[in-house]
Amino acid sequence: MGVIHKFCGENRNFRWEGVSVKEYPNDRSKQVTKQEMVGLQDGAKNFAMRYFEVAPGGYTSLDEHQHDHGVMILRGKGRVLLGEQSYEIGFGDAIYIFPHERHQFVNTGDEPLGFLCVIPPKE
Amino acid sequence: MGVIHKFCGENRNFRWEGVSVKEYPNDRSKQVTKQEMVGLQDGAKNFAMRYFEVAPGGYTSLDEHQHDHGVMILRGKGRVLLGEQSYEIGFGDAIYIFPHERHQFVNTGDEPLGFLCVIPPKE
Repeated sequence: MGVIHKFCGENRNFRWEGVSVKEYPNDRSKQVTKQEMVGLQDGAKNFAMRYFEVAPGGYTSLDEHQHDHGVMILRGKGRVLLGEQSYEIGFGDAIYIFPHERHQFVNTGDEPLGFLCVIPPKE
Repeated sequence: MGVIHKFCGENRNFRWEGVSVKEYPNDRSKQVTKQEMVGLQDGAKNFAMRYFEVAPGGYTSLDEHQHDHGVMILRGKGRVLLGEQSYEIGFGDAIYIFPHERHQFVNTGDEPLGFLCVIPPKE
């Protein structure tokens, strides 16, 4: 049968049962965490759903890679760099980042900036 | 550059700029709406991100198909049928539905049951 990772966030923490919280590998600032709620470990071969959280004052690494992203902001506020332009983002905003498009998420608020991020299978 | 669909929900409506609200084609009950925030119309060829909303008392059609789903509950509460078993669901719960797994979402609460649903490209 399918897999359910129950949300178990308390005190405004976003956590899921059976999902470990990892440092984001490319992040040297130690201000970004990653949780993978749907992925290969669940048998999902066609896409992965991850939750990233950026601490106040933090930002994700400046990325540019082959795979595309589908993003939805779940908490906090900030800015996203897409190519050469930066845009304000907040709860619910949905973003599509093209393959090879330069991108970066910056937390500009006082609380964590959290977002769901979908990727296709990595080659 | 990438595409941003700003969240423009007011009065607890979940709506996005540039995204139309559609009846879910398989739904005969008229109690389910669908909005596609990331998909082919945005140039996304590797996955689609959609938001479904089920009215109180409503349910999605009993589905069983080749493509898999990644789901996150964004509002309300209900139950999901996975194969032969039904499970309680609420905010933040992450669900992976396997290819060919029978599934159905039922709203058991007093407010809309809303969830994000990811699919791979359909053949």
